[in-house]
Amino acid sequence: MQHVDYLLSGGMIVTMNGQFDLIPDGSVAILGTSIVAVGTKAAVEAEYTANEVIDCAGKFVLPGLVNAHTHVPMTLLRGLADDLRLDVWLLGYVMPAERAFVTPEFCRLGTSLACAEMIRSGITAFADMYYFEEEIAAAAAEAGMRGVLGQSILKFPSPDAETYEKSLARARQFIESWQDHPLITPAVAPHAPYSNTDEIMRECVDLAVETGAPLLIHLAETRLELENSLEAIGMSVIQHMQAIDLFRAKVLAAHCVHIDQADMHLLKQGDASVAHCPTSNLKLASGIAPVTQMLKSGLVVGIGTDGPASNNDLDMFEEIRLAAILAKTDANDPTALPARQALLMATRQGAEALFIGDKTGSLEAGKLADVLIMDGQTLHSLPHFSRDPNAVYSQIVYAGHSADVRHVFCNGKLLMRDRELLTIAEADLLQRANALAQEIDVFMKRREASLLSRLLAMGELERSESFEVQAKAAVSDSVNLDSLLRHPDVQVIKTVHYKQYDTYFEFPDSEEGRVRYREDALIGNKGEIQSVRARLTLTETDTERDFHSTIRLSRARFIADATQPLRFYREYFRPQRERELEKDRLRWHIHFRGVLFYINLDRVLDPALPGQYLEIKSRTWSASDAEYKADLIHEMLGILGILPSAMITEGYLEMQPAG
Amino acid sequence: MQHVDYLLSGGMIVTMNGQFDLIPDGSVAILGTSIVAVGTKAAVEAEYTANEVIDCAGKFVLPGLVNAHTHVPMTLLRGLADDLRLDVWLLGYVMPAERAFVTPEFCRLGTSLACAEMIRSGITAFADMYYFEEEIAAAAAEAGMRGVLGQSILKFPSPDAETYEKSLARARQFIESWQDHPLITPAVAPHAPYSNTDEIMRECVDLAVETGAPLLIHLAETRLELENSLEAIGMSVIQHMQAIDLFRAKVLAAHCVHIDQADMHLLKQGDASVAHCPTSNLKLASGIAPVTQMLKSGLVVGIGTDGPASNNDLDMFEEIRLAAILAKTDANDPTALPARQALLMATRQGAEALFIGDKTGSLEAGKLADVLIMDGQTLHSLPHFSRDPNAVYSQIVYAGHSADVRHVFCNGKLLMRDRELLTIAEADLLQRANALAQEIDVFMKRREASLLSRLLAMGELERSESFEVQAKAAVSDSVNLDSLLRHPDVQVIKTVHYKQYDTYFEFPDSEEGRVRYREDALIGNKGEIQSVRARLTLTETDTERDFHSTIRLSRARFIADATQPLRFYREYFRPQRERELEKDRLRWHIHFRGVLFYINLDRVLDPALPGQYLEIKSRTWSASDAEYKADLIHEMLGILGILPSAMITEGYLEMQPAG
Repeated sequence: MQHVDYLLSGGMIVTMNGQFDLIPDGSVAILGTSIVAVGTKAAVEAEYTANEVIDCAGKFVLPGLVNAHTHVPMTLLRGLADDLRLDVWLLGYVMPAERAFVTPEFCRLGTSLACAEMIRSGITAFADMYYFEEEIAAAAAEAGMRGVLGQSILKFPSPDAETYEKSLARARQFIESWQDHPLITPAVAPHAPYSNTDEIMRECVDLAVETGAPLLIHLAETRLELENSLEAIGMSVIQHMQAIDLFRAKVLAAHCVHIDQADMHLLKQGDASVAHCPTSNLKLASGIAPVTQMLKSGLVVGIGTDGPASNNDLDMFEEIRLAAILAKTDANDPTALPARQALLMATRQGAEALFIGDKTGSLEAGKLADVLIMDGQTLHSLPHFSRDPNAVYSQIVYAGHSADVRHVFCNGKLLMRDRELLTIAEADLLQRANALAQEIDVFMKRREASLLSRLLAMGELERSESFEVQAKAAVSDSVNLDSLLRHPDVQVIKTVHYKQYDTYFEFPDSEEGRVRYREDALIGNKGEIQSVRARLTLTETDTERDFHSTIRLSRARFIADATQPLRFYREYFRPQRERELEKDRLRWHIHFRGVLFYINLDRVLDPALPGQYLEIKSRTWSASDAEYKADLIHEMLGILGILPSAMITEGYLEMQPAG
Repeated sequence: MQHVDYLLSGGMIVTMNGQFDLIPDGSVAILGTSIVAVGTKAAVEAEYTANEVIDCAGKFVLPGLVNAHTHVPMTLLRGLADDLRLDVWLLGYVMPAERAFVTPEFCRLGTSLACAEMIRSGITAFADMYYFEEEIAAAAAEAGMRGVLGQSILKFPSPDAETYEKSLARARQFIESWQDHPLITPAVAPHAPYSNTDEIMRECVDLAVETGAPLLIHLAETRLELENSLEAIGMSVIQHMQAIDLFRAKVLAAHCVHIDQADMHLLKQGDASVAHCPTSNLKLASGIAPVTQMLKSGLVVGIGTDGPASNNDLDMFEEIRLAAILAKTDANDPTALPARQALLMATRQGAEALFIGDKTGSLEAGKLADVLIMDGQTLHSLPHFSRDPNAVYSQIVYAGHSADVRHVFCNGKLLMRDRELLTIAEADLLQRANALAQEIDVFMKRREASLLSRLLAMGELERSESFEVQAKAAVSDSVNLDSLLRHPDVQVIKTVHYKQYDTYFEFPDSEEGRVRYREDALIGNKGEIQSVRARLTLTETDTERDFHSTIRLSRARFIADATQPLRFYREYFRPQRERELEKDRLRWHIHFRGVLFYINLDRVLDPALPGQYLEIKSRTWSASDAEYKADLIHEMLGILGILPSAMITEGYLEMQPAG
């Protein structure tokens, strides 16, 4: 008789070994960190006695689940913003919050929270990509979980490094410090091809090859990423990675939604594995990854929850189920990705995807003791039919819930017993998380308190204010502009012709003004569009002051190049009302008595206004300057013979018929 | 001060009313069956005292969820067979089990189980379609749940009626008996257009209109259904329903996966509502229903789990979440179907879909008290950000689990308190369900014990056995058949030319024989295919007996027309190996001395065998008859001058080179 630490006896052992052995009334013997025997209860108990026998009657005993892709500290940002497009979510909310809040403490707390949630879902190993990865490693090790943890590398400044060189130095440091840890496999994680340069990625590969560390990366997540890659370099994302020799490293590629058969061949050739994240891909509308073909191509595919800010939980049972059912509709074949294969991707094959398949992923003597024990006698999963041995997998995959997990072992250590966490002080964590969430909440609310602060919250934009004095008049088609342009006091500097496409976002509180997104299309001599520039302006609807009753002083509180498409701003600002205005503008830059003015001759095309309009404008910076320029405008109006009755103080939008 | 039964105080009240009011630190007052007040805790407690105040601090108080489509007694068949195509699942497994086991007791037990599971998932109302619907009504009422319950109508015999007339009579009887019940809305449920005739559906509409009962039906679930409808009658499924005036009734249409804009317009015009079942549609590979367009078209859309034999659970939280995320990828827009709208479909709009929107679906004074109270402070759903009021919906939809539901009220009655069911004896039910499952298991195993019983298990097929005596020989191209065909003792009855395409399913136990699926293509004078017939045969590989050493007696233990496509049988039998054989066959039906024989002249085309083969066969029914016919064959071989050395006793498959 050999003495061991634990015997898990009496349950249905779902080994997930090469033969997919199912052992009813079985037993698993654990000694130290390892499994020393798996067999029928009778056979195992004839050979082993134990410090503790855990009665598993009526339960399923499985390998601990492997979460192949996540960003664990983002538990702290869960629910910050949802139902948004990736760019709005990222640039408008997540990155501003990360810039302000992601610290070593944030990462440690967020990881402990995530570990608590993952253990409750039967997860014993996970692959992560985030910042301050050494804190994530420390927290995961403290929780007793296995992690393949990648220090993120970006070409931009990130919360833990101002430059990519510092990122790389951090990654090297991280890998060297954690390389021999029994639970942690340190890795390098260039975020994605579009957020790195080829040179940076090559340096990551060198580091990975030199140290033997895995390389984690997001690849081909969105259609846009694929299209941009094809357009920019004439190669698919995967071909691009092949071209820069990425696959010299042990690559775990997350998502791979937009890959074709040739890409799969390259991945397979390069011994790269894939982390399939179905919830995240659906929720962000990235698409459906071709998992059935990947598996047919012989690729090793794991299943990942992705980060909890985009999922919004770390529930592997939901993820496995979704992987199985989504593949059926994608392949138009209900026999595709059956339950057993889906569970395999979350256990043995998941471990292989993380390059730790020799250590974990199945219940076999010699493997490390990563085990979950779940209730097989629940209301929502019964009855159980034994006719088809696959019914066991079907019960687990199609009707199993995280809440059914009773006990979890990792590396021979009990992490949860009867749903009580043994390595994590849950209540304390929740309290700290809630306190931090309140700070983030206050910060986000302050940034959203006004249109201006919402503009500024996007971060890359800078505040700039400008004042203008301006006059506008309806003029006939026969207006004699030459009387001004050829006036001895006038010097014409430049003449340009634009088509202007304005979109105004209006809000319930009109006091706040409105946001104008303007595309200026510069028109050439032959009527062709020469260039387009987009600008974003926060305009006030009220006039600051009037001169000569019809000459207005107005203020634009914010103006900047619009670096994102109109759609982005629409989704970010969610205006109450949106109005469009298209006009044709001839513009003269002139000096009148040495002062710069703009003369606009506008035709409002859509919604059309009759006739044409003349505007005279100038930038200003003080009350006395404004008054002086207003006087000059008044004079020019006189030169043009424009009568006060022709003057208009409203904007083009206000001149539109009501409706 | 008014005295009420319950005050649900201190939680976040998620009213789901027309204004989507969210009331933090709110209170709901319940008196008898109804909600009498909803407001802030301070305001409500200033006006009401209660028999019991339930502390809801840290919890969300929501309307009870509405499951818009299910088949509740199928809890008892959950996990019976999975990862199969609809026809294999239905004809091969579910219908045989239903024919044998669905009784009134089965329906009552299955419903009680389902109610237990649904209450645990926060569901208070559901729409059902099954057999013995009066038993379902009785069990639901006993559990205290609200049901819109449809008695199924089929053109085929069903477990509760031998003919559709009896079904209709049952439906009328059911509706009349239950029409005024406070919880149950009886309905009529023609299963689907393809399983009914137009005449039957018209009678269902008449019954529904006469009694005011809703009409529940499956519409446009699969692409095949749509294609068949277009081919058979030149109309889409929905156009067909419009043509037979289905929408005179209050129609709740389940699935509607394959409908277009015009169909949506017809449904909207007909005031029909839709039950969206995303899990079932994915799992059965039916496709993704165009929910975003349906909602844009103004359709009332609820969310349903579908039956637990195809989902495999009755978890509305998973269903709501999947509805929300699937719509985003389907619409290629992550802002599509936001969390609030998804929750609306499972509450107020779900109730409207079931035609009980006046009674339930939101927390408003005057509505019936159907309420769920769930934990809002769970590890997997925190933190909570208050910046965006939609974060509440996001927390519930994207991170809420059934296990978070603490208390459930329906019709003012507490059905679950602190996760303990108050109207259902769970343990007893599980025991009875397990016992019944064992019986079904034994029954199914017996039917699967042999190839023959698996063939018979498909139900519509009948056993038939046949014996044949036969001889086969390799013959040269110059064989003189006329020596036999023009022999004075021979009369040629018929000459036919076939191409035969055989698929053999082989199994680990070759003793069992093999299943042959044969398509006989009858070839006309000009080489054209005149007709095709498919047959299924269970053949034994062993010979029963030999005569004259080379003339064999063989047995086919089963032969029947193959009513399903080859793909069906492949998925049903899951053979270990599949082999194909294509041959060209000239066949003469002859009388030799008044006895019927078949003479086949075969060329084996693929995999090709050299030369041609002559077979002489006859059916037989007794040992002495077989011996007599073997003697006649022996004589014919003599007439043809075929030597014993040319005789072959192997089948064409066995003659193939090994491999």
